Amino acid sequence: MIQEFIKTRAYSEELCKPLQTEDFVIQPVEFVSPTKWHLAHTTWFFEVFVLTKFKKGYKLYNKNFPYLFNSYYEAKGDRVMRAHRGNLSRPTVDEIFRYRTYVTKALKELLETSEEKELLKLVEIGIHHEKQHQELLLMDIKYCFGHNPLYPIYKSDFDEKSSEDSQQRWLSIEEGLFEIGHQEKGFCYDNETKAHKVFLQKFEISNRLVTNGEFLEFINDGGYKKPLLWHAEAWDWIQNEKIEHPLYWQKTKEGWKEFHLSGLEKLNQNHVLSHVSYFEASAFAQWKGYRLPTEFEWEVSQDQFSWGNRWEWTESAYLPYPNYEKAPGALGEYNGKFMVNQKVLRGGSAFTSGDHTRKTYRNFFHPHMRWQQNGVRLAK
Amino acid sequence: MIQEFIKTRAYSEELCKPLQTEDFVIQPVEFVSPTKWHLAHTTWFFEVFVLTKFKKGYKLYNKNFPYLFNSYYEAKGDRVMRAHRGNLSRPTVDEIFRYRTYVTKALKELLETSEEKELLKLVEIGIHHEKQHQELLLMDIKYCFGHNPLYPIYKSDFDEKSSEDSQQRWLSIEEGLFEIGHQEKGFCYDNETKAHKVFLQKFEISNRLVTNGEFLEFINDGGYKKPLLWHAEAWDWIQNEKIEHPLYWQKTKEGWKEFHLSGLEKLNQNHVLSHVSYFEASAFAQWKGYRLPTEFEWEVSQDQFSWGNRWEWTESAYLPYPNYEKAPGALGEYNGKFMVNQKVLRGGSAFTSGDHTRKTYRNFFHPHMRWQQNGVRLAK
Amino acid sequence: MIQEFIKTRAYSEELCKPLQTEDFVIQPVEFVSPTKWHLAHTTWFFEVFVLTKFKKGYKLYNKNFPYLFNSYYEAKGDRVMRAHRGNLSRPTVDEIFRYRTYVTKALKELLETSEEKELLKLVEIGIHHEKQHQELLLMDIKYCFGHNPLYPIYKSDFDEKSSEDSQQRWLSIEEGLFEIGHQEKGFCYDNETKAHKVFLQKFEISNRLVTNGEFLEFINDGGYKKPLLWHAEAWDWIQNEKIEHPLYWQKTKEGWKEFHLSGLEKLNQNHVLSHVSYFEASAFAQWKGYRLPTEFEWEVSQDQFSWGNRWEWTESAYLPYPNYEKAPGALGEYNGKFMVNQKVLRGGSAFTSGDHTRKTYRNFFHPHMRWQQNGVRLAK
Amino acid sequence: MIQEFIKTRAYSEELCKPLQTEDFVIQPVEFVSPTKWHLAHTTWFFEVFVLTKFKKGYKLYNKNFPYLFNSYYEAKGDRVMRAHRGNLSRPTVDEIFRYRTYVTKALKELLETSEEKELLKLVEIGIHHEKQHQELLLMDIKYCFGHNPLYPIYKSDFDEKSSEDSQQRWLSIEEGLFEIGHQEKGFCYDNETKAHKVFLQKFEISNRLVTNGEFLEFINDGGYKKPLLWHAEAWDWIQNEKIEHPLYWQKTKEGWKEFHLSGLEKLNQNHVLSHVSYFEASAFAQWKGYRLPTEFEWEVSQDQFSWGNRWEWTESAYLPYPNYEKAPGALGEYNGKFMVNQKVLRGGSAFTSGDHTRKTYRNFFHPHMRWQQNGVRLAK
Repeated sequence: MIQEFIKTRAYSEELCKPLQTEDFVIQPVEFVSPTKWHLAHTTWFFEVFVLTKFKKGYKLYNKNFPYLFNSYYEAKGDRVMRAHRGNLSRPTVDEIFRYRTYVTKALKELLETSEEKELLKLVEIGIHHEKQHQELLLMDIKYCFGHNPLYPIYKSDFDEKSSEDSQQRWLSIEEGLFEIGHQEKGFCYDNETKAHKVFLQKFEISNRLVTNGEFLEFINDGGYKKPLLWHAEAWDWIQNEKIEHPLYWQKTKEGWKEFHLSGLEKLNQNHVLSHVSYFEASAFAQWKGYRLPTEFEWEVSQDQFSWGNRWEWTESAYLPYPNYEKAPGALGEYNGKFMVNQKVLRGGSAFTSGDHTRKTYRNFFHPHMRWQQNGVRLAK
Repeated sequence: MIQEFIKTRAYSEELCKPLQTEDFVIQPVEFVSPTKWHLAHTTWFFEVFVLTKFKKGYKLYNKNFPYLFNSYYEAKGDRVMRAHRGNLSRPTVDEIFRYRTYVTKALKELLETSEEKELLKLVEIGIHHEKQHQELLLMDIKYCFGHNPLYPIYKSDFDEKSSEDSQQRWLSIEEGLFEIGHQEKGFCYDNETKAHKVFLQKFEISNRLVTNGEFLEFINDGGYKKPLLWHAEAWDWIQNEKIEHPLYWQKTKEGWKEFHLSGLEKLNQNHVLSHVSYFEASAFAQWKGYRLPTEFEWEVSQDQFSWGNRWEWTESAYLPYPNYEKAPGALGEYNGKFMVNQKVLRGGSAFTSGDHTRKTYRNFFHPHMRWQQNGVRLAK
Repeated sequence: MIQEFIKTRAYSEELCKPLQTEDFVIQPVEFVSPTKWHLAHTTWFFEVFVLTKFKKGYKLYNKNFPYLFNSYYEAKGDRVMRAHRGNLSRPTVDEIFRYRTYVTKALKELLETSEEKELLKLVEIGIHHEKQHQELLLMDIKYCFGHNPLYPIYKSDFDEKSSEDSQQRWLSIEEGLFEIGHQEKGFCYDNETKAHKVFLQKFEISNRLVTNGEFLEFINDGGYKKPLLWHAEAWDWIQNEKIEHPLYWQKTKEGWKEFHLSGLEKLNQNHVLSHVSYFEASAFAQWKGYRLPTEFEWEVSQDQFSWGNRWEWTESAYLPYPNYEKAPGALGEYNGKFMVNQKVLRGGSAFTSGDHTRKTYRNFFHPHMRWQQNGVRLAK
Repeated sequence: MIQEFIKTRAYSEELCKPLQTEDFVIQPVEFVSPTKWHLAHTTWFFEVFVLTKFKKGYKLYNKNFPYLFNSYYEAKGDRVMRAHRGNLSRPTVDEIFRYRTYVTKALKELLETSEEKELLKLVEIGIHHEKQHQELLLMDIKYCFGHNPLYPIYKSDFDEKSSEDSQQRWLSIEEGLFEIGHQEKGFCYDNETKAHKVFLQKFEISNRLVTNGEFLEFINDGGYKKPLLWHAEAWDWIQNEKIEHPLYWQKTKEGWKEFHLSGLEKLNQNHVLSHVSYFEASAFAQWKGYRLPTEFEWEVSQDQFSWGNRWEWTESAYLPYPNYEKAPGALGEYNGKFMVNQKVLRGGSAFTSGDHTRKTYRNFFHPHMRWQQNGVRLAK
């Protein structure tokens, strides 16, 4: 556990190596957080959920930091409004690295002296929490750089693209009763439980994700201008926001380009489509005459296709499983309170840290969100 | 069919008898439509979906009316923005009644001369469509009157209250595979199909709805001030909108009052709670240590309790059933395009027209909406 | 005074003769008030400023009406928010006419028995106040009808147009000290005082107002697309609101049309331009190489040209004159609290009631407002 | 001129010495610009108004920078929206310093080889422009630090406070004709011309500015809760924004504190009041029974009192003087297009660079703005 903890802490800092100080600070839109906030918030998590509880005589690094770095835990008190995270130039990046060192050291010492079960459980959650923020950090950096007219490069060899040149085929699954959810051997989030049975009708699911080339046909056929393909809220959204293509695409005099963490490049039609909203994924599926799979269909068929390079939109709303139980206190706010108006995504992405996913993992976003690295798999 | 058509048309007008001319005009909030708009829009529906298609030489009553009275059918062309329906003093109420007479007469003539199957199907939908608007008309009038400082009375003998003094009991249903959805004998909306099997875990469901008295305990216990009971979006909503009680309740010097179509009255604690959002229903259930039923649980157990006096919030998101198919063209916009970010309600209400509900009927609203006459049934 | 009072009250009702009940109710935009609100508010003014103060034993017609019909007098207590005036279907129009009759009768009785000076002064203000609302009533009706796709006619012989076919000439005024403001013989508003001296440089002012034809040249020359002609706030405004022509103009397949209270008509190029904002007036003047006059220039030269058919935008900000004194109490809110961010207009319009203007009269509106009947006179 | 140019450029950089890299980046609210933007924008001004015009073969430092660093010059093309200035982490602070060096060097070379009159005039404007931004830079840093929960210190010996312990006296000026405006010997902005005569009534003006202690009496007397003291727009503003005290005041358990560039300190009642809006200045004056001076009253009496440590709100609207002429082209956008809805301030402040003010200088802000270092002088 100590090793995993140290490794995770180090990896967050590793991800920041290509950044300039200025890049740690900005928040171009409310749902994007500054890099330095991610670094501090994951540290705060260990500080308030673990150290203040288990470490005798632990002294907060700075008594103002809980106010600055709490994200959304009502049970943990007031905090800076989310939209204001990018308004704070202090504490500086250097100061936050010192904060990290202080907390990492204190927690390492604690773990060397105690193996209390609840402690270990909380540290484990803290590690997984930090891994989630590692993915958010990359998503947010991509947003910052992809919206800067200079299109800075994060890392020229960062490879987030993947090709799908294999033939599209339909995998067929017969109707039946299936086991869904996590068996609770090993770590999982509360939202993956309780494991339970689900009855599914016969369905077919694609062996691969939709490509840029396929989505370009949708655009060229006027897909963004045909209201009957879209949900009513989706149609309002594309009108109001003037949405005409995936998030990081742009139409230039030299043709379509796509922004990656490795820079602005010519759009590759064989690459897997990414950075579309559920709304766009659903409209595209309608246009093809198909639909998106449910999260249950995905889970029962996932051993028949390869996945993990893109979070895949499902048709399923993010809802509690039968007999779902929230953790008591602040940790109960981790997942449960978001179970309305969001859609489940399954899989994982090129931004996902190492082993931080599994077949029962339920990621979730609002249907208009698209700054996560996502993809579209069709079903019928 | 002719008889049902005539009866339905007449009933819409019957509902307007207690109103003054001014009451037909106003739209105090975007989601409420003016009474005269309901009267005209249901007429427009018959005009554009039926008469222009099936009646030879049919002449539109007024060529501007389709622009004025289309609701949300993109396939039927441009229209007045929803929020502007209450900005139009013309056509007058009298003119709209003349429009109704013109269309009713033309359709009656048509039905007397043709029994074409598609025609009858469209008229049937038009009748059900008008019944839905009859309920909306009452909801909207209640909103208009309930937000007027004079608290006008719609009808002093309109009875929308119902008592629940019976003892609360839990009905228990064993796990199993159940048939869900409409068998398509007789009329149903497309969203009730296809009938299909669902596997449910064992569950218990209350024999009755929550009462005002029970909800008052929630308020008195500070339920609206405890963030851990609420979804994150719900908490934002009650903060921003300063929500502290159900929609038509008010705290006065003489104690709690509740507004009904029969006027402003002392709150009766034995009456069934109504006009709460899904957010409030869910927070209340959490506070009690229970939850809301899913729409499937409701459907398979509904023969064991009485229902129909309140639309009952369920935990289920409004999503397509397996193998759901939208109707082609404009009618495909009736239901399918709303299948995101909404919650299913089951049952019916005191505002629901005659036979316009059934056990498979899926009503739906956004989770913060509460001007429909609704109720809360608990499950566990 | 009694006669003037009765005549004024009657004239307000006379103006409503061409209206349908529905027309009294709507408020399509916040700055437009429903006709029935104007009728009631002017009545409320007499009730609370005069009757409750001077008439022994006077009983309010309805104790809720002060809440409903106070406009902006903080000293007179809470009130319906301005934007919600059109949300109230009750009291009905008939009820408001009964309210008017009740108050008119009571005030007539009072005036027959008392000639107290303060009473007479307040009634005089009330009369002028009602005349102001008579103009607002016409402005608001024009807005309601001009934004209804059916373009209803208020009165087919209502003549609000005036021609300017005379040759444009410059009237020249030599520099000097001039007397400005009202001498306080006869009625005036507090904002016209104190009379005082102003030194003006030599200037020239046009003998006539700008015509539609002249403004059309501005449009055809791309005036709305040239940022350097506009104030910064004006430019933002025309971008955000997509302003491309005066308020009641529209470009149709058959050429430019203009809406009047007498209906939608072909634009007449010889008619005086109206319904432009200060922003548009100023941009037009810049384009011509001239400017707008100040209110002082207007006042000292007004005897050399004819005026009264259009409120004329001036370059002057609406500010207190030297030694201006607000009336004590609620009446002090009549004018003084609006003396920021508004522009002065001088003259009068075809909507202005009878003798309700004079050369020292200072009308005022925000620079983007244009639903008043206004015009543009150039200076240099 | 070369010397003044070099000195001005160096002083901008001098002001940044106490800052951390992170402090250069943020934009907590639309009207505040990032420090690095100020550094780059003032450089851009020299680049596009001078170098590209006068220096043969001049190569832009970076062809994207004009898009990034144009402020509001429509004639100079598209630009980053004002609200998005803080969303750009790149170019970095180091890069912008290199940009400054490049442009400073090029301009120095140019000045060493040419003494063309128009060139010198433009460089002179550029120098004054940069001095204006030096003041903005300090205002903006104060805003950033004053809204950071850690209340960072810019410079512990930065002295922006000034005491007014002298007795308040009224200076009396007899009525008469006065010369107003700049005589155009030496530099001035176009808005200070043409010099012209103004007739003023007799008035009295205070010998000193209002103190914190005096304003505290206003607060303690409920000044922020008395609607009759406020303009209508001011009252809406204090309600909506929950304004209850000057911008940098805060009420703590240990009493009132005030934030300065030297840190958060106990409020000193003898210090001059600062950081109030025109709305607050005007309400305070009303409460005292006095008023604010006009800009003309200020100008003609300014030699009888000391000034320069606070921009003083006047009652005057920011309007063109008689015979005002905008410069042709983009420079015409410098002042003229802001001449609506703003108020004139006279004087200067502790943030104003060296000699960058004079008795005819017209500063201007919207009436609700208060992040400039301002003050209140009373008149009657």
